[in-house]
Amino acid sequence: MKGKLITLEGGEGAGKSTVLDALRTQLAQHGIDAVVTREPGGTPVGEAIRSLLLDPARAGLCAETELLLMFASRAQLVRELVEPALAAGRWVLSDRFTDASFAYQGGGRGQPLARIAELERWAAAGVRPDLTLLLDLPVDEGLARVRGRGPADRIEMENAHFFENVRDAYRARAVADPARFRVIDSSRPLAYVLAQVHDVVAAFLDANGAARAQGARP
Amino acid sequence: MKGKLITLEGGEGAGKSTVLDALRTQLAQHGIDAVVTREPGGTPVGEAIRSLLLDPARAGLCAETELLLMFASRAQLVRELVEPALAAGRWVLSDRFTDASFAYQGGGRGQPLARIAELERWAAAGVRPDLTLLLDLPVDEGLARVRGRGPADRIEMENAHFFENVRDAYRARAVADPARFRVIDSSRPLAYVLAQVHDVVAAFLDANGAARAQGARP
Repeated sequence: MKGKLITLEGGEGAGKSTVLDALRTQLAQHGIDAVVTREPGGTPVGEAIRSLLLDPARAGLCAETELLLMFASRAQLVRELVEPALAAGRWVLSDRFTDASFAYQGGGRGQPLARIAELERWAAAGVRPDLTLLLDLPVDEGLARVRGRGPADRIEMENAHFFENVRDAYRARAVADPARFRVIDSSRPLAYVLAQVHDVVAAFLDANGAARAQGARP
Repeated sequence: MKGKLITLEGGEGAGKSTVLDALRTQLAQHGIDAVVTREPGGTPVGEAIRSLLLDPARAGLCAETELLLMFASRAQLVRELVEPALAAGRWVLSDRFTDASFAYQGGGRGQPLARIAELERWAAAGVRPDLTLLLDLPVDEGLARVRGRGPADRIEMENAHFFENVRDAYRARAVADPARFRVIDSSRPLAYVLAQVHDVVAAFLDANGAARAQGARP
């Protein structure tokens, strides 16, 4: 059986890392040893591209360069990791994927959505997630959480207006594809967020015939 | 007056560096202080991308990633250096430009030419050279020259079949756009090659009304 691709999306401070850990554990309880990756990055060249993209010193990086670097990383990730893993029946969990380009480079930087869709077609080989969890949170709450973390990277240094556009673009993606997206209200207490994620993933596992591993508990 | 963009193209060992120096000197004799750049590279992020692209350790880089990285470097070069220089009336000399993507990523790697043309339109902002010198040379002669130079980079490590395809693609570009291209037979003795380049550039300068600076000699 072909594996499934589950992606986590959301703005700054939405809690993706915590949710990713919980998600991996939940899959393991069903006997699914997921490949966990992230974007940009996930391959050696992708991680080198990530360093270029997030370096706060590269303030002059133009929007087109940013978009091309994101898809350069994604093109390699899809061919080196995602497609081989799915073909081998492995599940893949990714911290961000192509929806993030629609949100950040599209909504945030104003790159045309048709341009991003065209890159998705050939650079990302048309690979689409089977399930996408969008951790949604008011921008000011997310930025307040991130500020406690240490030095901001190049994208975290953007202003609230940029992140409002990112959030709007994410939400528009979710509205346009309700079969794939599940929107999680990430402003709620963590226990509630994790319970919501758990229910969504449990339903997805049921729908995909993944039996719970013997003796495992939620 | 808007400046002019002159590009040098050609396979491995075609003599681009020597010709570039001669070209810069010839322009200087006409009072033209050209901005000299190269691809991939030419900007800080472009040079970082160049390092990724040429690293012999990155043998697994897929063709799509290579194409996207080339245009990421070019998108930045066009907006940060080429367009501002041309707008300010400066001339720009580039060691390779978009024709190299048609030759290497198109002819060499088999990326569709329509895909490259589309990237040229938006990533390179449709910027086209005013004059392109193609230094043409049989593949085996070029490779023999390069082998004397030291360790090969990732692209120089390709086989002769790859470089034959690159050469064919370059020559097809020149045939398709004779108003812009001048093909120089780079297998001839250096003095002959430089004389040919000199004549081509002198004609281009005449056609563009660039007066020879007083007291300068060819």
